[in-house]
Amino acid sequence: MLKRYLLAPGPTPVPHEALLAMAAPVLHHRTPQFAEIFRRVAAGSRELFGTRQPVLPLASSGTGAMEAAITNTLSAGDRVLVVSGGKFGERWAQIARTHGLEVTEIPVEWGCAVEAAQVAAALRRHPDVRAVLMQHSETSTTALHPVERVADLTRDSDVLLIVDGITSVGVLETRMDEVGIDVLVTGSQKAIMLPPGLALIALSDKAWAASAKSTLPRYYFDLAKARASFAKDSTAYTPAISLIVGLEAVYRLVEEQGGWPAVYRRHGILAEATRCGVRAMGLRLLAPSAPSPAATGVWMPEGMDAGVLTRYLRDVMGVTVAGGQGQLEGKIFRLGHIGYADTFDVIVGLAAVEMALKHLGADVVLGRGPAAAQEVLLQMYQG
Amino acid sequence: MLKRYLLAPGPTPVPHEALLAMAAPVLHHRTPQFAEIFRRVAAGSRELFGTRQPVLPLASSGTGAMEAAITNTLSAGDRVLVVSGGKFGERWAQIARTHGLEVTEIPVEWGCAVEAAQVAAALRRHPDVRAVLMQHSETSTTALHPVERVADLTRDSDVLLIVDGITSVGVLETRMDEVGIDVLVTGSQKAIMLPPGLALIALSDKAWAASAKSTLPRYYFDLAKARASFAKDSTAYTPAISLIVGLEAVYRLVEEQGGWPAVYRRHGILAEATRCGVRAMGLRLLAPSAPSPAATGVWMPEGMDAGVLTRYLRDVMGVTVAGGQGQLEGKIFRLGHIGYADTFDVIVGLAAVEMALKHLGADVVLGRGPAAAQEVLLQMYQG
Repeated sequence: MLKRYLLAPGPTPVPHEALLAMAAPVLHHRTPQFAEIFRRVAAGSRELFGTRQPVLPLASSGTGAMEAAITNTLSAGDRVLVVSGGKFGERWAQIARTHGLEVTEIPVEWGCAVEAAQVAAALRRHPDVRAVLMQHSETSTTALHPVERVADLTRDSDVLLIVDGITSVGVLETRMDEVGIDVLVTGSQKAIMLPPGLALIALSDKAWAASAKSTLPRYYFDLAKARASFAKDSTAYTPAISLIVGLEAVYRLVEEQGGWPAVYRRHGILAEATRCGVRAMGLRLLAPSAPSPAATGVWMPEGMDAGVLTRYLRDVMGVTVAGGQGQLEGKIFRLGHIGYADTFDVIVGLAAVEMALKHLGADVVLGRGPAAAQEVLLQMYQG
Repeated sequence: MLKRYLLAPGPTPVPHEALLAMAAPVLHHRTPQFAEIFRRVAAGSRELFGTRQPVLPLASSGTGAMEAAITNTLSAGDRVLVVSGGKFGERWAQIARTHGLEVTEIPVEWGCAVEAAQVAAALRRHPDVRAVLMQHSETSTTALHPVERVADLTRDSDVLLIVDGITSVGVLETRMDEVGIDVLVTGSQKAIMLPPGLALIALSDKAWAASAKSTLPRYYFDLAKARASFAKDSTAYTPAISLIVGLEAVYRLVEEQGGWPAVYRRHGILAEATRCGVRAMGLRLLAPSAPSPAATGVWMPEGMDAGVLTRYLRDVMGVTVAGGQGQLEGKIFRLGHIGYADTFDVIVGLAAVEMALKHLGADVVLGRGPAAAQEVLLQMYQG
């Protein structure tokens, strides 16, 4: 009788309020009933993104919205700077190259954050750069990049700042307009606690102006068309109806439970508790200097394969955590604490990792991880 | 964002396989389709009870089946022995007196098990006793009574052994026929992992013979009628259709996951881990000498009110455990580990209790309970 625990950085567990809303019979999307839901979701998404702009829902995963961000704002031959410190930084570069852009990568050691000074230097070296592409939270390395400091470099220029907020939006406060993010993207299966299949994207005025001049071909992901439909509380093509219904339920749930500030505080505490627990177990953090509040990467003990650990956790103990990707495969594992995660998910994750490591022969004293986490997690119930 | 954890001795969590089965459109019960489900459930219930007798489903809670056990086998003025060592022992006495029976109680200190010798002595003192009424697991005190040893006293006599197996059936192996239990009762919201509203009851040949002579009035709970309908794969009155559909899903799930022996083993390990965790926290067990594998009762630290603890756990931390009932109210709390419970439920329960006690000012070292439990729980993944 294995219960399943989903403690990965995404997909993440879906609260039952959203599951039940999505289990209701499917509405038709060209109806006043759906338009009303659409309007409420639009208002919620604007609050979430911190923008006055329309936040457009796309029936796609986050990668689709990343591609839309590029194809709607740039043209073949344009130079872009890509912050490349993990698998998703690499993805920005791949998408850009696929569409004939000139990519200049800023290499960042995996597990570290980019320095704003590196971006500034690259911008000086390449005055023809049209956009900076970066992650806010690089999910593959659990590092957090300094989007606000990079925005200080692009805000008053023609350079667009295009940000993958897939594991940051809803995890920490996002103020798209105030910070000066030009394109912001997120996906449904992360902090917004839904199944995969829905992406959200918003463009600044500067990005919309760039969009008018951009010549890359786009059809399904044509955001000008999406914006025109959005103005009529609709989408250009068939929306992911159930996910939008689910998103309404999520926004209602968040509001009932103290709003987004409470969510951001919770993510901060869960992340800190996880890091303390990992250190108490005698393990090393992958991104100690700029850790993401979405997930925590952990180096495996010397000589042990992370794949063996994550498979044992998943197949024998019922606990799904993430392994490493790309150059980190086999070397690290990642504990997610994003979205519908609470105090006890952190404790379960740490206890399970301890037990699995002990089973696999590591030198582990059971209980140290949970104990250290419990100490931090007491904050959840204070104030 | 409080997640809810149901760690009481019942109602207990329902696995999603059963929830989904019960969410399907309601079948009509006078159909071949339902009869087929009914037959499969009947076979599963026979295996669960360890009996060749029909196990009759009643649309009622367990208390309804307790009343049926009495009204179908006894007559006004009959003397019954009641093992009274908790709230549910008291309930047997109340039901018996309601129906005009002569009740002789065997008082047992709450938290202790009856001694078979006490029952033997009472049977010698009262040769007119027609039935012994007892709990197998006394949920209110988390003590386990020695049903098999009591059955040794009644098996070859005319005395009926009527057993409330509400928190024992499905928790530990039940061999109704082999042991010589004459009436066995259980409820859906415990080890069989369903919502409340369905009870199961079976009678031995001796009990069916007594039933033919019993003169207490019964209509809804007339088990002879229920048996006649059962022979036609049906019930006398409208059955709790969805719960029977859910029970089919539960039996299938148990079979897929190693059968009841694996379930009994799991309950034993979870209970042992909970007891070790509680002792490691420096707390005292309520029923150390004969603990039930369904739930663990724990004395509050000196001077602290259990109601304050259980309310804090439930309302602030989202963790529902049970308090004390009757004379134990305020003095104890109970951690359930029955039904759809696993390794991490035990860890969550212990971690939550530690954190709540610490918050309430008790002298608690965080992590000791989970650590001791983890050590025991490693067994879950071995052999």
